[in-house]
Amino acid sequence: MESSASILPLSQLPSVFPQKPKRSNLPYNPSWLSNSKPRASRPPRMHCHKMYVPGFGEASPEAKAANNLHSFFTYVAVSIVCAQLESYNTEAYEELMEFLSRNSLNDGDQFCANLMRESSRHKGLALRILEVRSAYCKNDFEWDNLQRLAFKMVDESNTRLMRDYVLEISHVEGEQEK
Amino acid sequence: MESSASILPLSQLPSVFPQKPKRSNLPYNPSWLSNSKPRASRPPRMHCHKMYVPGFGEASPEAKAANNLHSFFTYVAVSIVCAQLESYNTEAYEELMEFLSRNSLNDGDQFCANLMRESSRHKGLALRILEVRSAYCKNDFEWDNLQRLAFKMVDESNTRLMRDYVLEISHVEGEQEK
Repeated sequence: MESSASILPLSQLPSVFPQKPKRSNLPYNPSWLSNSKPRASRPPRMHCHKMYVPGFGEASPEAKAANNLHSFFTYVAVSIVCAQLESYNTEAYEELMEFLSRNSLNDGDQFCANLMRESSRHKGLALRILEVRSAYCKNDFEWDNLQRLAFKMVDESNTRLMRDYVLEISHVEGEQEK
Repeated sequence: MESSASILPLSQLPSVFPQKPKRSNLPYNPSWLSNSKPRASRPPRMHCHKMYVPGFGEASPEAKAANNLHSFFTYVAVSIVCAQLESYNTEAYEELMEFLSRNSLNDGDQFCANLMRESSRHKGLALRILEVRSAYCKNDFEWDNLQRLAFKMVDESNTRLMRDYVLEISHVEGEQEK
């Protein structure tokens, strides 16, 4: 079944770490510092060959990234359900789009919780979104491809940044020699 | 070598898709639609068993997620370098923190490009950040763990959302029966 593309507003996209209200934007925020454990009581650091990543408190970088992907999967699941509905259930599609216009997808779980409580028809949509995001995360999303693309991206970006710099510098030096 | 935690301002964290200025926040934006290919010229969709994910244009969801992780790795690399410098090179640490207070980490590549051009000492720091983000992405970041945590997160979130809803509903029904 061919369904045409449905477009979600990009403002709905979750930001990387929306669920950290306690941390302020200030670089040296006393409330942030008071939330972290005092240094004296920290457990001794495990010795391993990995680089020390500071500032992640109890959550690992992997957990932060997974949390971010979780929001992304909810966004993708809503997109998938919208596209499915658009082609064969216009009424439900309109209802979901109307709900989307009133509710932010920044916090995907909160969005689903609100959707469940809107009406019994909305509840059906919410359960479907939960099911789709689980299926998408576990079956459809290409994890190997994600890793491959990230490796490629870091190599290409590093090369481009250094090449651009060298080109710029050699150009400036060429100008000075004239 | 033990280094104490250095804290980066969370406002520096990149948002999920910062590099899409053409797409507006409006749900039905004519300029967005005009940027997408007309439907008639679209290549026929590949038949596969995966769900159709609309609205990603040329970039796949995996590419979007990789792009987001790329920004995250730059943020982590800056944190790592800050923590390393803090313990044995206070001067360079101060310089990097001062540069961080003036420059956003939202676009990690742009941040590195600016850092390279600040001074020759800053250039050294920038090259180190590039090296660290590549090493972190390829060696230290636990990709299997990321996938495991994301699977766990989607299961737990779905269970919690449904359980909370059922508890709430049964409570309301209990109230009504009194």
